[in-house]
Amino acid sequence: MPDKTPDQPRIAGVSFSLYPMCDNFVDLILSAIKKVDSSKVWMKTDRVSTIVRGRIPHIFDVTQAAFLEIAKTGEHVVYSATFSVGCPGDTEGHAYMDADEKTLNRELIEAVDQKLSAKFALYPMGGGNYMDPIYEQIEAMKDHGVDVELTHYETMLDGPAQNIFNGLQSVLQAMEDAGSAHTVMTATLSANSPSA
Amino acid sequence: MPDKTPDQPRIAGVSFSLYPMCDNFVDLILSAIKKVDSSKVWMKTDRVSTIVRGRIPHIFDVTQAAFLEIAKTGEHVVYSATFSVGCPGDTEGHAYMDADEKTLNRELIEAVDQKLSAKFALYPMGGGNYMDPIYEQIEAMKDHGVDVELTHYETMLDGPAQNIFNGLQSVLQAMEDAGSAHTVMTATLSANSPSA
Repeated sequence: MPDKTPDQPRIAGVSFSLYPMCDNFVDLILSAIKKVDSSKVWMKTDRVSTIVRGRIPHIFDVTQAAFLEIAKTGEHVVYSATFSVGCPGDTEGHAYMDADEKTLNRELIEAVDQKLSAKFALYPMGGGNYMDPIYEQIEAMKDHGVDVELTHYETMLDGPAQNIFNGLQSVLQAMEDAGSAHTVMTATLSANSPSA
Repeated sequence: MPDKTPDQPRIAGVSFSLYPMCDNFVDLILSAIKKVDSSKVWMKTDRVSTIVRGRIPHIFDVTQAAFLEIAKTGEHVVYSATFSVGCPGDTEGHAYMDADEKTLNRELIEAVDQKLSAKFALYPMGGGNYMDPIYEQIEAMKDHGVDVELTHYETMLDGPAQNIFNGLQSVLQAMEDAGSAHTVMTATLSANSPSA
C-alpha cells in the first residue's frame, strides 16, 4: 500500500444510479445531471450506471446533489451506489485529484429538505478482523443524527438526507484515515417511497 | 467455520429491490410478487428492500421470476441485489433450509426471453488473496454465454437473462464449494433501458 498523507489522498470512486419511479424518468435524470456542477470529478455514464471518480468530498457532493434534484419533485426515487477506494484492480486513470476540496453543489443540496430511508453496508477487503471496523462505523453513524437499525446483510438508516450523506462520507473517510487497504461501501437511499 | 457437505448447505440470502421506471410501479411490483411462488424461501419487505433467505437455487429462482414478470411488460426495470453467505453477524433465524432444491418458478422464468445489461461485483471477505477468486469468477462468467467487459469497480455483463442469472448463481455456488468463509456479491440488472 502506498504511503498516504492528508496532502496525498487516494482516488475514490462510486458507481451509482438514480431510479425515478415515474414515466418521465429520462427527463428527470437528464435535467438533474445538467444542474449539477461536476467539474471537479471524472464522470461517465454507461448502460448500467454512472462512474464518478475524484476526491471523497466531491463524489458525495455531485451524486447527492443529482439525487436531491430529483427527490425534490416529490417522485419516488432511489439512489443506489457502490463506493470504492484502493481496489487493487483499479487504474490511476480518470483521476481529478488536483482539484481542491471545496465542494461546488452545497447550495443545491442545502435547498432540499428531504427525509430518507436507506441501507448501507461496509466491506473492508483483505483484512482478517473486518467485522470490527464495520461495527465501529455503524456506531459512528449515530453521531450524525441518523436512526440506525440492524437487519440482514445491511444496516437500515433513517433521517434527513444531509445527515445520512454526512454519515456515509464520514465512514469512507474514517476507513481511509485508518489506513484501510481497500474499502467498498454500498448504499441504497430511498426518497418519497409510498411504503415509508 | 463449520464443516459443510453437499447435504448441509449454509443459508444464503439476498437483499434485493425492483425499480420499475414508470408511474404504475406499485402495481407492477405487487402483481409480480403475487405471481411468484416463494414458499421455499423466507421473504420480508421493509421500507428499502426485500430480504429473501434460503437455499441458493431458491433465492435466485424467486427474485429472477419477480424481475422477469415486470420486464416482460416492456417497462424499463432494474433489479438491484446484495447476495450474502456466511456473514459472521448473521443469525440462523429465518432459515428455510429443509426445503429441497427443486425450484418452483421455472415456467414463469422460461416464458420470458429478455436481454439484460448488468454489472456485478464479488467480495470474498476476510481473505488475503481475495482478488484471485474474483478474477477466476469473472472468467467463469464467459462459460455461461455472457459478454464480459471490465469497468471501474464492477464487471459489466450483457446477454440473455437466463445466462446472466445462471452465471451469477454459479459464482455464489462456486465460492461456497471452494469453502469461502463469507461471500458477498452485488448485482445490478437492467431491462428495457432506453440507453441500451
